Amino acid sequence: MLEKTTRMNYLYDFYQSLLTPKQRSYMSLYYLDDFSLGEIADEYDVSRQAVYDNIKRTEAMLEEYEEKLLLFQKFQKRSKLISSLKEILNENSEKNMEIFSALAELEKLD
Amino acid sequence: MLEKTTRMNYLYDFYQSLLTPKQRSYMSLYYLDDFSLGEIADEYDVSRQAVYDNIKRTEAMLEEYEEKLLLFQKFQKRSKLISSLKEILNENSEKNMEIFSALAELEKLD
Repeated sequence: MLEKTTRMNYLYDFYQSLLTPKQRSYMSLYYLDDFSLGEIADEYDVSRQAVYDNIKRTEAMLEEYEEKLLLFQKFQKRSKLISSLKEILNENSEKNMEIFSALAELEKLD
Repeated sequence: MLEKTTRMNYLYDFYQSLLTPKQRSYMSLYYLDDFSLGEIADEYDVSRQAVYDNIKRTEAMLEEYEEKLLLFQKFQKRSKLISSLKEILNENSEKNMEIFSALAELEKLD
């Protein structure tokens, strides 16, 4: 469930601009603000079932958009690549420090 | 016109998965294969006007998707950043060559 919530949060983040204002409100109350279905139903004066159906449909839409555009998948790949590049840069700068201290020793020799 | 064609090619590339098969056919014949409106009309046995209207509507849809998702704009920013990183790496590797030859000279001194 936690994994599904995280995934829905990401998909919502990437595709919210393609949703209707009502879909955005329900999704953001449910997934970001952790409202229950009943609380959202009270807020909008509709049945709990109506909120549930709307959210289920929206989740399916978000998955369809992801199937077509792969924005979340590409984001994950990009994040992984950026992390490895940062790690390489980090190792590199440690190596540079080693070179600096070897040069400092070299300077001290007569 | 050339600029518009380039832009439409990119937008089509990013958002084609959100179009209908007919929209994809017309756009790809018109923008990628350089067919005229008349030739597409002949191919699909519809009026030139129908092809024109369909392509205009599709172009508007692609611009709307770009307004909402900014995939082309983000792609351009990313490409620019990657280019500057490559340039920095390139300068860096030239600097490394200089360090290597200075070290080689240092080795030769007695």
